[in-house]
Amino acid sequence: MSKAENVLKAWLRHRLVLLEVLDLLEDQHLNYKPWENAMTLQQLVTHILFSANMFAKAVKAGKIVPPASSNPPEVQTVSDLKKLAEEITEETKKTITEFSDEKLETPVDMTQLFGTHLPGKSILRIMNEHEIHHKGQLYVYLRLVGVKELPLFVKRQ
Amino acid sequence: MSKAENVLKAWLRHRLVLLEVLDLLEDQHLNYKPWENAMTLQQLVTHILFSANMFAKAVKAGKIVPPASSNPPEVQTVSDLKKLAEEITEETKKTITEFSDEKLETPVDMTQLFGTHLPGKSILRIMNEHEIHHKGQLYVYLRLVGVKELPLFVKRQ
Repeated sequence: MSKAENVLKAWLRHRLVLLEVLDLLEDQHLNYKPWENAMTLQQLVTHILFSANMFAKAVKAGKIVPPASSNPPEVQTVSDLKKLAEEITEETKKTITEFSDEKLETPVDMTQLFGTHLPGKSILRIMNEHEIHHKGQLYVYLRLVGVKELPLFVKRQ
Repeated sequence: MSKAENVLKAWLRHRLVLLEVLDLLEDQHLNYKPWENAMTLQQLVTHILFSANMFAKAVKAGKIVPPASSNPPEVQTVSDLKKLAEEITEETKKTITEFSDEKLETPVDMTQLFGTHLPGKSILRIMNEHEIHHKGQLYVYLRLVGVKELPLFVKRQ
């Protein structure tokens, strides 16, 4: 297994849980936010999706690539959110799958975000940890809108 | 740098943030819980502390070591929680520091928790991801008790 395949597998153990918990939502939960100025539930989900995609694209390009739109699309239904999540997940997967071992060692210009250059493998580590952090937050949101049963935070190995 | 030192460094980038955010708490926040049957804020913190310690000790022993007490100690003040957190952190650090590269490859009997044996390095990965997940939840708790400014979820590299 290539290093990129290992990275992908480790990240999917969290992303697949994210996709799974979206099925527990109802449309009226999408704009829930637990405090003023918080991200809404859908903003939290799209932040996870588009951040991972941004990190993967940065490794590919060697630098941060500004997104096509400054705001992720807003959706009205859980079904549309799930569709969006699946599309972005496929795009991110495809990007990561193509990385050679050498690419993972190549420095990426992350000055804009972190004030420094970091090797691709470090960016992908941050990508994964960023996703776990915000998914943890999402778990509290889900409890607060009334979801009673949540899966383990990570798929078993 | 040994593999154990790398694991330790990556985990401390989160543990040091956990210790830092405890300073933002007031004593009356300790028993806050955002929904019925939730862990209280202090239970969430002690769950993070004692889980990491349990994972590290399992790697050392080659199997899960039952804790001396089935419940983590309850504290009444933020100062006592911080003291406890620092003590357990030191203990966990010391355990991880001693692992040889070979130890990280040695299977650990995790049948009781995960139904299988896993190499030490996989247990330490789960330890880190478990901590990030619950720290993400803690960030929402902290906002909900009124904390306005929180540090980045991870120490910069």
